[in-house]
Amino acid sequence: MKQEMLILAGPASPRTAEHLAELTGAQLVKVEYKRFPDGESYIRLPVSVEGEEVVVVQTTYPEQDKRLVELLLMIETAKDLGAKSVTTVAPYLAYARQDRQFRDGEALSVKTVLRLIEAAGATKFVTVDIHKKESLSWLSIEGINVTAVELLSEHLKKQKLSNPVVIAPDVGAKWRAEKAAEILRGETVVLEKHRDRITGEIVTKGVEVDLRGRDVVIIDDLISTGGTIANAAKIAKKKGAGKVYVACTHALLIGAAMEKMVKAGVDEVIATDTVPSPVSVVGVAPAIAKVL
Amino acid sequence: MKQEMLILAGPASPRTAEHLAELTGAQLVKVEYKRFPDGESYIRLPVSVEGEEVVVVQTTYPEQDKRLVELLLMIETAKDLGAKSVTTVAPYLAYARQDRQFRDGEALSVKTVLRLIEAAGATKFVTVDIHKKESLSWLSIEGINVTAVELLSEHLKKQKLSNPVVIAPDVGAKWRAEKAAEILRGETVVLEKHRDRITGEIVTKGVEVDLRGRDVVIIDDLISTGGTIANAAKIAKKKGAGKVYVACTHALLIGAAMEKMVKAGVDEVIATDTVPSPVSVVGVAPAIAKVL
Repeated sequence: MKQEMLILAGPASPRTAEHLAELTGAQLVKVEYKRFPDGESYIRLPVSVEGEEVVVVQTTYPEQDKRLVELLLMIETAKDLGAKSVTTVAPYLAYARQDRQFRDGEALSVKTVLRLIEAAGATKFVTVDIHKKESLSWLSIEGINVTAVELLSEHLKKQKLSNPVVIAPDVGAKWRAEKAAEILRGETVVLEKHRDRITGEIVTKGVEVDLRGRDVVIIDDLISTGGTIANAAKIAKKKGAGKVYVACTHALLIGAAMEKMVKAGVDEVIATDTVPSPVSVVGVAPAIAKVL
Repeated sequence: MKQEMLILAGPASPRTAEHLAELTGAQLVKVEYKRFPDGESYIRLPVSVEGEEVVVVQTTYPEQDKRLVELLLMIETAKDLGAKSVTTVAPYLAYARQDRQFRDGEALSVKTVLRLIEAAGATKFVTVDIHKKESLSWLSIEGINVTAVELLSEHLKKQKLSNPVVIAPDVGAKWRAEKAAEILRGETVVLEKHRDRITGEIVTKGVEVDLRGRDVVIIDDLISTGGTIANAAKIAKKKGAGKVYVACTHALLIGAAMEKMVKAGVDEVIATDTVPSPVSVVGVAPAIAKVL
């Protein structure tokens, strides 16, 4: 938290940048932006960044590619204009799920994205709840992943949950569920998720836990089409759960994701503002401010 | 022209890649591509590129940012999978018009785009009628700009123009007009174009040339909103021109560009296939094949 920083608000993250400036006491600068008639982005830094410690803040969803190119333009421009350092904050990192070659010849997209950010001139990289933390090892600059689990859990705490159970919809979310359960003073249940190799459908195994009279929180890093969460919610309802809350960091909410979750018995969804959505009620800046 | 090359057809340029393979005798490989539900691109090279001389072919319009990210993913994947060289062909290069800092603090976007292509792993870069050839000096790898003027002129030659005059709509297009006039055995006229600093409107000065009974060809590198061409066409018509042809390399045709040109008296527009459009009738592969 350094007052002498300059926070450059990218066009995709005006509020997170503003919030970061408030929390750190740094100067906020809104990057000038327009879209040309042919669809290209125009980027301009309206103040001198020479010798400054600059923090570029830009999430990369929706329109991942457009937001990514804007981010790269901002980073390189700051570097070219003499910034002393260019910390790059991408609250949601596009392409993070393509983190290994599932089949021969596949692009390892998260690697390309991270290396381009570095090639453009980033000197430090910060993101929130990246799909796999190991992906950051593609960077040779410092790469920091912060989690929003605490912020989401503190928000849920206000709801006065009844004897809560925190459900991890798959093994990958286990640590997340344990962290949330600690804050909510609840128990943890981990479901087993499989993707059917033929149909691509997600199958979640049930668990032998009695949830009668207990409120449930399903926690995950990301909601895409909502299928994983819906399966977990159905299982919870079957076991007699009271209210079913869903907490996630990145609410992509593709297509009918909300409808699917509500139909499965979900009462409320909360998410952070790493991506814009109707349920993005938790500001993620406090988690980021700590590592700037 | 090397038979042992592998031509990787990017999703934006299937026909140019196919044509290049025909002309060079190289093997054509169609890059596997899909768009995930969240909008991200999936890229996979379906053959081994280890030790191969690879040519990645992908134009970057429309959806410049999407096409650019796909291109970067293809280049890095080919490099990572052991390609001996990765020649990168972008028939239309997005962001080429943002080639200097018109105002302090502006992104020099063409520089960023070219350097990212190099950072991804390109070992040689080829494009067609880039807005300013000087932009290629941002590369430290070999950068080649080929022109489509000859191909466009040869195509027009079939029209049996009457005592033709080739008009350059501004000074930047002068060499283009002279080259075309040489092939069409015609004269050259260069117009002076100014952009009004207050209104942003394009004003083209007239010229004292009698065009009665003569067919006119207006030639330029790019048609965006069609304003520059329309102004030139009006001047030509005022001077009594017969048929008015327009020839350009990149037909972006934003908004009502075609309508604007037709209203101004343009009879026919032809362009290359560097970008897809209803007037992209001239294949640009022969110009590219020569430098591979």
